[in-house]
Amino acid sequence: MISMISSRLARVVVSGIQPTGVPHLGNYLGALSNWVKLQQNAHSDDTLLYMVVGWHGMTLPQNPKLLASARWDMLATLLAVGLDPKRSIIFHQEDNQDHLELSWLLNCLTPVGRLFRMTTWKSRIASSRNADEADVDETLLNAGLLTYPVLQAADILAYRATHVPVGEDQTQHLELTRDIADTFNRTFKSKNALFPLPNLVSTPSHRILSLKDPSSKMSKSSPDIQSRILLTDTPAQIKSKIRGAVTDSIQGITFDPVNRPGCANLLNILAASTGQDVHQTVKGYENKGHGDLKKDVTEAVIELFRDPQKELGRLLQDRAYLQQVSVEGARKAKELSGETMTHVRERVGLC
Amino acid sequence: MISMISSRLARVVVSGIQPTGVPHLGNYLGALSNWVKLQQNAHSDDTLLYMVVGWHGMTLPQNPKLLASARWDMLATLLAVGLDPKRSIIFHQEDNQDHLELSWLLNCLTPVGRLFRMTTWKSRIASSRNADEADVDETLLNAGLLTYPVLQAADILAYRATHVPVGEDQTQHLELTRDIADTFNRTFKSKNALFPLPNLVSTPSHRILSLKDPSSKMSKSSPDIQSRILLTDTPAQIKSKIRGAVTDSIQGITFDPVNRPGCANLLNILAASTGQDVHQTVKGYENKGHGDLKKDVTEAVIELFRDPQKELGRLLQDRAYLQQVSVEGARKAKELSGETMTHVRERVGLC
Repeated sequence: MISMISSRLARVVVSGIQPTGVPHLGNYLGALSNWVKLQQNAHSDDTLLYMVVGWHGMTLPQNPKLLASARWDMLATLLAVGLDPKRSIIFHQEDNQDHLELSWLLNCLTPVGRLFRMTTWKSRIASSRNADEADVDETLLNAGLLTYPVLQAADILAYRATHVPVGEDQTQHLELTRDIADTFNRTFKSKNALFPLPNLVSTPSHRILSLKDPSSKMSKSSPDIQSRILLTDTPAQIKSKIRGAVTDSIQGITFDPVNRPGCANLLNILAASTGQDVHQTVKGYENKGHGDLKKDVTEAVIELFRDPQKELGRLLQDRAYLQQVSVEGARKAKELSGETMTHVRERVGLC
Repeated sequence: MISMISSRLARVVVSGIQPTGVPHLGNYLGALSNWVKLQQNAHSDDTLLYMVVGWHGMTLPQNPKLLASARWDMLATLLAVGLDPKRSIIFHQEDNQDHLELSWLLNCLTPVGRLFRMTTWKSRIASSRNADEADVDETLLNAGLLTYPVLQAADILAYRATHVPVGEDQTQHLELTRDIADTFNRTFKSKNALFPLPNLVSTPSHRILSLKDPSSKMSKSSPDIQSRILLTDTPAQIKSKIRGAVTDSIQGITFDPVNRPGCANLLNILAASTGQDVHQTVKGYENKGHGDLKKDVTEAVIELFRDPQKELGRLLQDRAYLQQVSVEGARKAKELSGETMTHVRERVGLC
């Protein structure tokens, strides 16, 4: 009976991606395609915000020239994969300083010890240096990398988000965001709690593995470029990379992620690329071999990337349009965060 | 010969004060009167920026209602003591988000270990809890208090300041600011270094002590209100506080800060209030006693505060004018920091 009288609350969905340049298949199937699905399935009163988070990119050393183009490549990619600037608010994080103002105020509520216990700063330093996490200590840590989970909380709370699609490695940051929101609500009490505690959006998680080392995720930072397929790869490059993918010498195709990770990875890619369940997909391969599977994966990925690739190529030639989208997105984002910040400043006494 | 052909470079002077409400005599003689002197002695091409730093106020717990009025009281005080909004740029830090954007980028260049070695966070926690520094550890430290020296660096570098008048307890922060500026200049090289390394402005330092415990500074946080004279105290209050000041039982007046700190403090207050050198001042008291000295100190402080008090009373009734000054100040400040930030974003690749 309760469900009949309770009205659905409008959602605010927020997510961000670092300006790492052109994304690979893992980024595409793991995050971007989910963002597009969220857009497709959103109710008309839901608000969706997707941003390229340039400030987070500064927490590790960057080549400024590469960063300057990578942030536009990533914005173009968001549009190319199907995010619609008429429906979703698409913008550069660094065009909205409200994030940093809120982040400062939240820093003042966040114990340093809590940030040290996050594991992400260690893994980010380790992967940037191709080192082991055990070899990483605090002497390598800068204040940006220590506090970036608080900026991430501000990215979310500035829009009073209710739903956040994040990867598994980021769930500890969402936990922190909820704790900080709760601390703010309790410290600066008023009639109503200012921040909703944002929920994790569970999306079909496609953990795409390296084509060369199926014990690890497909990654931008791996030195072997054959281990990943980029959104800008030609059909010939895609074919060659999948042909060279590490599998195993067992006859026939079965879905066994533990004992046959390379083969399972190809099945996962095929299933995700064609929108099937992997257990459905594997049925078609009972009497086939790795060669058949690789051929079909190649075709599916080429097909999956065909339209986004064409669109990306077109968009990268049209910087004026990208700038227009980003200016308009930032304007809409600031309108929303501006309202939040007015409440925030009133509550903390800076008004 | 070189000095004859070298032209004087225009100075940019930046300083800030926390919104602790109405200042006491120590604040006045230690910082504010120096700011006014810097304004009086500035060349016509010098730029002077004085701000009330509300964001720094958030690093320790605050009562939002008190903070909201204290930040206006402090802005009014800056005007009341003689800072002229036609000559100096007077504003609220929290009206210029550029400080926090720059602070974020500088955080990403600042080792966490360096911030832990600052002694100020320990002393600030200790004094806010009336505890001993030895009893303060990192479990009490929030991320705002750890990183506020970086925000302070940004407050200064956003205007490419050349000269910074700071108290003795802040020299380690100015050292940090110089190091961070240098790191930025080297990391993001271009034809010219972006940031000048700011210099300490040495001003006559009047270390005014507690009237009740001349072993410690006059302080806002001391529980004994008889220990400090506030800018808003009436002549009767000033008289009573100075009459109750701790001195000693030695006959006659001499200037001996080590053995006669209370007496030396009164001489310092008298000298600073009348613009004399203390060694000059003491000569007039060779044959006098504490009663004579206290009477003269009382008169001098009442006289010193007479005009600022009247002006402060008037300004606190005119919030519209204060708002106008602060809006105009923030506009000018943003114009200057905006130019810096354009260069900063270009150099780091966020453009």
